Amino acid sequence: MRYEELTIEGRNAVLEAFRSGKTIDKLFVQRDCQDGPIGTIIREAKKHGVILDFVGRERLDQLSETKKHQGVIAYAAAYEYAQVEDMLKAAEQKGEEPFLILLDNIEDPHNLGAIIRTANVAGAHGVVIPKRRAAGLTATVAKASAGALNYTPVAKVTNLSQTIKDLKKRGIWFACADMDGTPMYQVDLKGPLGLVIGSEGEGVGKLVKENCDFHAAIPMAGNIGSLNASVAAGVLAYEIVRQRMR
Amino acid sequence: MRYEELTIEGRNAVLEAFRSGKTIDKLFVQRDCQDGPIGTIIREAKKHGVILDFVGRERLDQLSETKKHQGVIAYAAAYEYAQVEDMLKAAEQKGEEPFLILLDNIEDPHNLGAIIRTANVAGAHGVVIPKRRAAGLTATVAKASAGALNYTPVAKVTNLSQTIKDLKKRGIWFACADMDGTPMYQVDLKGPLGLVIGSEGEGVGKLVKENCDFHAAIPMAGNIGSLNASVAAGVLAYEIVRQRMR
Repeated sequence: MRYEELTIEGRNAVLEAFRSGKTIDKLFVQRDCQDGPIGTIIREAKKHGVILDFVGRERLDQLSETKKHQGVIAYAAAYEYAQVEDMLKAAEQKGEEPFLILLDNIEDPHNLGAIIRTANVAGAHGVVIPKRRAAGLTATVAKASAGALNYTPVAKVTNLSQTIKDLKKRGIWFACADMDGTPMYQVDLKGPLGLVIGSEGEGVGKLVKENCDFHAAIPMAGNIGSLNASVAAGVLAYEIVRQRMR
Repeated sequence: MRYEELTIEGRNAVLEAFRSGKTIDKLFVQRDCQDGPIGTIIREAKKHGVILDFVGRERLDQLSETKKHQGVIAYAAAYEYAQVEDMLKAAEQKGEEPFLILLDNIEDPHNLGAIIRTANVAGAHGVVIPKRRAAGLTATVAKASAGALNYTPVAKVTNLSQTIKDLKKRGIWFACADMDGTPMYQVDLKGPLGLVIGSEGEGVGKLVKENCDFHAAIPMAGNIGSLNASVAAGVLAYEIVRQRMR
């Protein structure tokens, strides 16, 4: 998969992108290039919590559009990130209880895209993702969102637990997907709510989980212990829709 | 994507696979190869409703493991297909109302895999797909199913409408996903049921839709007109789970 329209290549271009505050989702650095300018770029990347991938020259050549990558290729967000504040304002303007979907370490761009799409269709006011270890708003995400990325705001936050704590002070409740939790039909999901979905492998992180008010379980009847993350998000989002319609 | 363990290469091997009754999901034929043996293979493929893809020699060379493809490469089912009858028996043995998920032209293997996974977790007794224009049980599907393919039977039928008609005579009701239908919360989904999910592009086909007893709509609040097919299947499957739990 190539993200052609989002690729930034070459040392100056990449450094400039960092300095202008552009959101970089991933940085590829040539493994045997560790000189001064590359060092500066790596420091910027670490400062901003960007996923770093050290690869061979052949891989960079393959990824490169311009064939003049000089040892660095960055993937930048195709879409602008929003602020959580904007989502709350949107809810207020519509006269609706806030409904946010927070994703704890969803790394698969197809899942992220499908969840943004679900957020839109289910009437959520936005999607919140952490800065580290999360898929960014790449072309793949945009495609998987089926256009929803143009309508549903996505915010990137430094610390998901802290964001949850801050929003709790403002009256928002948090429910996380947790197979050891209370069956979702018995959890009151009608008020101002943040729904937290974890990665498929690890679920919701310990600290994030501790900060949630409710732990909602999707009933499981089969041999497999979990649903695909975007399916789980859809099932829980629609339980919220159902309760709010009553 | 490569389906290495499922690839059948070479004229004799492919022809033999057809003759032994093995389920072939897709056949790649070299565009400029139209001699006698290839003609026989193409006729077999058409007879069995196999997806045919005419490609250049370079593409076949790329797909080939053995580098001796002789102009044909077939992808065969990695898993054995089941019969619908077996699913009904399984439901009976468990003392449960039959719950089947039928897919009308789901061509994306990730979606098919995710739906088989959902079927397992939601306690459905099997998944039914049509022979034509559907993704087969390839390695990609198996992976996306997260192992559910080892537990949840999948049947391939010649004509989905006919299967629905036959099963209706045996007391099973059919509900299809339909955005112009009745809100799903108002549809009675508690009895013996087949849930029909259509492709993302086209939805459920006209004839299949006409044969369904209920048309269930997922409420849509956003700007985008539909959910990802596997998310829609999950949301509807869990509405069935909810109603059956009451």
